[in-house]
Amino acid sequence: MPGVRGIALVIDLATAKTNKYASRESGDTVEFVERPTGGFSAVMVDGQGSGAAAKSLSLQLSSRAVSLLKDGVRDGVVARAVHDTLFAFRGGKVSATLDIVSVDLKTQHVIVTRNAVTPLIVLDDGDVSIVPTEAGPVGLYHFTRPSVVQLPLTAGLMVVSYTDGIQSAGNRSRAGAFDVSAAVGDVQLGRISSQAVANAILGQAVARDQGRPIDDMAVVVLTISEHQDDPLVRSITMRIPLP
Amino acid sequence: MPGVRGIALVIDLATAKTNKYASRESGDTVEFVERPTGGFSAVMVDGQGSGAAAKSLSLQLSSRAVSLLKDGVRDGVVARAVHDTLFAFRGGKVSATLDIVSVDLKTQHVIVTRNAVTPLIVLDDGDVSIVPTEAGPVGLYHFTRPSVVQLPLTAGLMVVSYTDGIQSAGNRSRAGAFDVSAAVGDVQLGRISSQAVANAILGQAVARDQGRPIDDMAVVVLTISEHQDDPLVRSITMRIPLP
Repeated sequence: MPGVRGIALVIDLATAKTNKYASRESGDTVEFVERPTGGFSAVMVDGQGSGAAAKSLSLQLSSRAVSLLKDGVRDGVVARAVHDTLFAFRGGKVSATLDIVSVDLKTQHVIVTRNAVTPLIVLDDGDVSIVPTEAGPVGLYHFTRPSVVQLPLTAGLMVVSYTDGIQSAGNRSRAGAFDVSAAVGDVQLGRISSQAVANAILGQAVARDQGRPIDDMAVVVLTISEHQDDPLVRSITMRIPLP
Repeated sequence: MPGVRGIALVIDLATAKTNKYASRESGDTVEFVERPTGGFSAVMVDGQGSGAAAKSLSLQLSSRAVSLLKDGVRDGVVARAVHDTLFAFRGGKVSATLDIVSVDLKTQHVIVTRNAVTPLIVLDDGDVSIVPTEAGPVGLYHFTRPSVVQLPLTAGLMVVSYTDGIQSAGNRSRAGAFDVSAAVGDVQLGRISSQAVANAILGQAVARDQGRPIDDMAVVVLTISEHQDDPLVRSITMRIPLP
């Protein structure tokens, strides 16, 4: 399947995450899966609170989302289903944020489906835009719907999604609001990998919290660029340092 | 959770895969997921044949395996369930190989559950061993069971699992059998990443097929080593070059 403009594109998807200081478990879960209709999705869930309960909640919700995506269910329905299940079993008492960042090769679009409290950062051919959140977290009210952003799959596109632990990093130390979009604008200049961008944003957030994160933190970065690889080798790397 | 010997361990899990020459789809699917009871699993499925039908089959079976693992079902039961479903719906006419490479933090073991046609390569503190296959592919006979290898989670452990496209690479060009264990022994010396090992094995296999792979190829490499990271940042990177 050739790129939109006849150019061979490469999907570069990465995540970096860390947990709240002195907490063994992170309530932020990120999973990458292949879509049965062609393409890939990142699922990021930030479960309410921190510690073991938040981790269990976020694993449960990410499990639901991953199963449905792997069954070929469309992203908007996956988000509604995750909400409905959480609301049905926890009666509006527990919330979570949900981000699904997808590359859909069938429609040749990047689709970002969110129930979040943070904005989405989009970098398109050098222009940074901040897409505010329209839909809040899942789990709290009847019939919550996600907000959806669709972008044509073209080289030079970068999408950055992050949890509120990154957004609020440094707030207690009077460092001012963390302008993630500025960080994205800065790091992109060198045409570096999604992983480097994710690590840079997480690193800045941790530094703003004086090296002791006040909340769990996770960031997902998707970059679409051109390539001249031959043969076409697909790769996934996961690095998990244990305490 | 400290490492077995009180040393901080890092899980380094990687995959590299490519498709049969002139085929748009690879029948080999690899997914990485987080286990709800603590730990991570790689699922590798090689669907019978090649092209769209093999891809659809391997996505369907990997979807089944991923859903069950994310629900906390034990690996041996996941393999049996994948077999039972395939056998029930395709009546013994379609087969697939299934590898589940898991790091189980609860039991502090690496667990490799396989219905494969290739051996497993284990490198433990410099010693390479070849663990032959005892269980064949799923889908063909009643009550197929997987073979299971359990290894204590310690630094210096490497496990390499691969599909038969790699095993048989070069067979048609009279290059002799591809000794993947020798390749593993060679590349390990420099203490390089799992991704570098996976890329090296895939690269050698592609070269043995004169740059035009005769079959879909996939390899999963898991390395356990020590680290001194602070803070603990977990990362996942996926790179997908499109045709």
